[in-house]
Amino acid sequence: MKINKVFWLLLGLISLPAYAAEQADVIKNIQEIRVSIDSVWVVMGGILVFFMQAGFALVESGSVRSKNTVNVLMKNYMDACLGGLVFWLVGFGLMFGVNHSGWLGMSHFAPDQLASWDWNLLFFQMMFAATATTIASGAMAERIHFVAYVVSAAFVSGLIYPVFGSWAWGSLFEGEGWLKAMGFIDFAGSTVVHSMGGWVALAGIIVLGPRLGRFGRHGQIHALPGHSLPLVALGGFILWLAWFGFNAASTVNADVSIGRIALNTHLAACAAAVTYMLYALVRRKAILIKTTINASLGGLVGITAGCATMNPVYAILTGSIAGLMVSVLPRMLEKCRVDDVVDAVTVHGFCGAWGTIAAGIFFESNMFNSSIVAVQAIGVAAGFAWGFGVAFIVFKVLHLILGGLRVSAQHEQRGLDYTEHAELSYPEFQRDITFDTDEINKRH
Amino acid sequence: MKINKVFWLLLGLISLPAYAAEQADVIKNIQEIRVSIDSVWVVMGGILVFFMQAGFALVESGSVRSKNTVNVLMKNYMDACLGGLVFWLVGFGLMFGVNHSGWLGMSHFAPDQLASWDWNLLFFQMMFAATATTIASGAMAERIHFVAYVVSAAFVSGLIYPVFGSWAWGSLFEGEGWLKAMGFIDFAGSTVVHSMGGWVALAGIIVLGPRLGRFGRHGQIHALPGHSLPLVALGGFILWLAWFGFNAASTVNADVSIGRIALNTHLAACAAAVTYMLYALVRRKAILIKTTINASLGGLVGITAGCATMNPVYAILTGSIAGLMVSVLPRMLEKCRVDDVVDAVTVHGFCGAWGTIAAGIFFESNMFNSSIVAVQAIGVAAGFAWGFGVAFIVFKVLHLILGGLRVSAQHEQRGLDYTEHAELSYPEFQRDITFDTDEINKRH
Amino acid sequence: MKINKVFWLLLGLISLPAYAAEQADVIKNIQEIRVSIDSVWVVMGGILVFFMQAGFALVESGSVRSKNTVNVLMKNYMDACLGGLVFWLVGFGLMFGVNHSGWLGMSHFAPDQLASWDWNLLFFQMMFAATATTIASGAMAERIHFVAYVVSAAFVSGLIYPVFGSWAWGSLFEGEGWLKAMGFIDFAGSTVVHSMGGWVALAGIIVLGPRLGRFGRHGQIHALPGHSLPLVALGGFILWLAWFGFNAASTVNADVSIGRIALNTHLAACAAAVTYMLYALVRRKAILIKTTINASLGGLVGITAGCATMNPVYAILTGSIAGLMVSVLPRMLEKCRVDDVVDAVTVHGFCGAWGTIAAGIFFESNMFNSSIVAVQAIGVAAGFAWGFGVAFIVFKVLHLILGGLRVSAQHEQRGLDYTEHAELSYPEFQRDITFDTDEINKRH
Repeated sequence: MKINKVFWLLLGLISLPAYAAEQADVIKNIQEIRVSIDSVWVVMGGILVFFMQAGFALVESGSVRSKNTVNVLMKNYMDACLGGLVFWLVGFGLMFGVNHSGWLGMSHFAPDQLASWDWNLLFFQMMFAATATTIASGAMAERIHFVAYVVSAAFVSGLIYPVFGSWAWGSLFEGEGWLKAMGFIDFAGSTVVHSMGGWVALAGIIVLGPRLGRFGRHGQIHALPGHSLPLVALGGFILWLAWFGFNAASTVNADVSIGRIALNTHLAACAAAVTYMLYALVRRKAILIKTTINASLGGLVGITAGCATMNPVYAILTGSIAGLMVSVLPRMLEKCRVDDVVDAVTVHGFCGAWGTIAAGIFFESNMFNSSIVAVQAIGVAAGFAWGFGVAFIVFKVLHLILGGLRVSAQHEQRGLDYTEHAELSYPEFQRDITFDTDEINKRH
Repeated sequence: MKINKVFWLLLGLISLPAYAAEQADVIKNIQEIRVSIDSVWVVMGGILVFFMQAGFALVESGSVRSKNTVNVLMKNYMDACLGGLVFWLVGFGLMFGVNHSGWLGMSHFAPDQLASWDWNLLFFQMMFAATATTIASGAMAERIHFVAYVVSAAFVSGLIYPVFGSWAWGSLFEGEGWLKAMGFIDFAGSTVVHSMGGWVALAGIIVLGPRLGRFGRHGQIHALPGHSLPLVALGGFILWLAWFGFNAASTVNADVSIGRIALNTHLAACAAAVTYMLYALVRRKAILIKTTINASLGGLVGITAGCATMNPVYAILTGSIAGLMVSVLPRMLEKCRVDDVVDAVTVHGFCGAWGTIAAGIFFESNMFNSSIVAVQAIGVAAGFAWGFGVAFIVFKVLHLILGGLRVSAQHEQRGLDYTEHAELSYPEFQRDITFDTDEINKRH
Repeated sequence: MKINKVFWLLLGLISLPAYAAEQADVIKNIQEIRVSIDSVWVVMGGILVFFMQAGFALVESGSVRSKNTVNVLMKNYMDACLGGLVFWLVGFGLMFGVNHSGWLGMSHFAPDQLASWDWNLLFFQMMFAATATTIASGAMAERIHFVAYVVSAAFVSGLIYPVFGSWAWGSLFEGEGWLKAMGFIDFAGSTVVHSMGGWVALAGIIVLGPRLGRFGRHGQIHALPGHSLPLVALGGFILWLAWFGFNAASTVNADVSIGRIALNTHLAACAAAVTYMLYALVRRKAILIKTTINASLGGLVGITAGCATMNPVYAILTGSIAGLMVSVLPRMLEKCRVDDVVDAVTVHGFCGAWGTIAAGIFFESNMFNSSIVAVQAIGVAAGFAWGFGVAFIVFKVLHLILGGLRVSAQHEQRGLDYTEHAELSYPEFQRDITFDTDEINKRH
């Protein structure tokens, strides 16, 4: 009996605390693993979203004439670079910093000390800012001054995008954006990223005006075909690839739901392209590769808001309608003499707006709930007002300050590669571009 | 003594249930994390496999003349789109649905409600279907009607691929495919995906016949060189990249074995290309870039069946033999007047068959086991009979229904980009293609 | 009282051992999950690093004249293939094998049996070897014999790279490299991979001499513009993408720190490109796309050593200085008649050296610590002595054995695609290259 008691006492004293310590260790390990796997997913997502820059660069450079190819590539490349630096410097703070008013983050500028996990988020979000920025570059191609463009891009990454972002997604720390507080649904950014980019593009196009020769005096519309459709197609594939990171990693944690998100993303893109194909077949028109790719991109933009809160059938429906929009709207904009080189206003602006509304209509397969849809509409309207409005002012001011946002007619005719960069994209194949080697040497 | 008992009682009442609850919580957390990490791996794998579409599109579009580039790109793009929709609609159910007969899945069509984890699998498998489908597009390039091709592609994604898949890999739910029940080894699809695509290609080529000018009346063979070898090379790199997802994520769970699978995959591709290089050097022939790339792809196809059940030395051997096959067989097919634009029959069909046999011969470094190899041979033969047979019927029927699978000789000469799509891939550089702008405008 | 004791006894006998077993199971599960997630991260990293081969292939092939495009692509493709096989055969053993002397690994050659986890590391490291190898290919483009190049590449993958690697990173098993023992910091290989590649390139360029027509008799410098800047730009994007795997997966385990590493990597690249842009603007020169891309690559090379041990502000500073180096040094090398087709000596050699020093200077934001920096300088010097020295001997010996490392002047003028590979990269667009179809057929 005595021994028994001593045994129990020892067991109690030894085993239970040992268990408790082991248990604490287990729990700490589990938490660390949880953070590790989330880090892997979010960082991989950011890496994929980075690749969108290459996708945009290819779609846009293939869509312009060869004399403007270097210029477009350079705009995309600098968008990535400025998107990184400017978003780090001010964008992140404006978007995700402490946001008591609901209208603006006000901390964490140029962050040099963050909690370990927050670096992952900063990396991921930085790529989104660069994406929003680069959407406009293609629309305004073949006529904008390079330096003016670069300055405007800094405004998108550092002001237009993050301020709206703070309304819908802020804050990471304290406070909440006013749209978020209303229950606005925009999972991965149909409005926050894509419509924002599309409305900036629209503002830019209006301020710049159409390219020379695009519209005749008597209402004729002249196509100015892009110089390389393989570049456009590869860009389309790369964007689609990157979109899986864009949407599925917007969970910002690794869990089993990412499969349905990726699937919805894929099905919407498929449905959009197939819808355009059927549309063209029914109307007995040629099935154009650029429109096919744009349709799939429109489907991707459309599903971005609701990819985490829809069933596949609704994802297919959302994508199909986006595909139809891409089949129809660019022609209508053309008739309004809006010269959008890559149809960014339709693909990103309008399809983003549609997707945001669709995320409300098809929310978790519920019956139509007008109050949810109303909030979505408010978000879309706010996005347009802010994005178009501020961008319009920025472009107008740049136009005044820099003595013209647009290059001279002579430069436009010679091509921006030569006039802005003193380079040719394919020096052996562009036999009809004449240039002065001495001048080039001087400028190099 | 009394206090002691109370102490023990309290300890028992309080600490043990608390421990038990905590423990249950820990186990639940571990299970969730396990699923999370598997989801990340499988979804990343699916994303990589999606990128194969871009790889095929580039290899194929670079291998055709510039007048047919848009057409090939469009076929690949629509393969991805239809592969997605059709596989979701019927393919997944046929392949992985409840399969009591062993010959066909019969549930889960157009799935809108699945267990969370199954969405991940559906996403991953959907990309495999699209891959199997797109293999044939290059082989039949430069002469097939676009709409006929698209319809045939839907049959591959929705019938040919998933039915054979149900034999070898089905079911996810109940029942088992007859080949799987025999112990057939095809880890990631040397036969299920690649040979299937290769045999479909062979059937298509036979029904279509060779391109105009490919073979002379007196047995001469004329090469019709592809218009852009850089596109072919980039496509090769992208396919190789994507193959790591194809093979290593076919574990469908994240575990430590993925490294050896990826390594085997890599070494087989390396060995195949180096084997071709040595073959060309020994025979004092030029080392051609297209054959080099095809050799590496043959190595990748070959290792796909056995990558998880071989040691590296055997992976190298499997790859080398595939490389030798790619060095030799295309010339032999050419002599039989089989006009395979990208050598898909050799690379995917024959190398896939070899890889499936090799997976049996080199299974876990065992001594040669004839019963294992016999099962592998049965799988290979069944794959050929089903894939070639059904595809032949599909192409023949399409030929009859659509009034010709093949475009007219005049259209073939002008190029399918202009006749089928009213577009040029490089409008500034294709000076010898004449076209009617008014006609183009009407068709746009 | 009796029952109470029996109760306690049963509880003790049943529940505690059950807990212990469950606990052991939990711990085993956690360890397995830890290994699984590390495997996913390291394998994904290796996959991304593989893609660098495509990036280099595009940057280099776009930077040469179209008549040498196939040749450059083939060199890059074979670098990947040989890098794989040779590193497996000897490189891994030399670099990571048992290393008692500190100067050389001496085990694990042609590994066929490894611990599961080690396959992951072998896969990851194999891609680093291929990267180090392929850096030199672009620098020596347009004039080196293909077979001679391939042999030299095998020496880089199998001797030059792994031996230096054993000093800085060895061993995985027993013993420690002498540089590692001194505390040398080179997290992901600014010196081990990049400078090594850059110094090999320098040795090769010196042995080969400049291309025909590159430098005039009276000191004139003639630019020989690359044939496709879109290929260069896409290559730049792909390299940047792959670099996230290169740097962030060099943790070789998945943990929360990967976000800061990826962020530092990105910011350094951004800062380098923006610094070059400002440099060009201030000097009123054109902003060239090739230099922009090279600047960003210089920033990436520079941050590679210190990306895990710096704060973002210092990453930006490290990148900016690398960007400045890329703005200035290539012109100086040109004046020394060093004909580096892609500026690899500056981007990889000098920026790698700078980055290695910077990793010491900015180590964990400490004050300048001269002893840390001294060790870094020793590593940089040792890297140059070994890399340049051995490569110089290898190239000289190959020159003697093979009767000339360099192709004949006639072949150089006709272009290596035709003379070495009997192929044209763009047969429809290279109208000024004349060739003999019969001769080509014979060589095929």
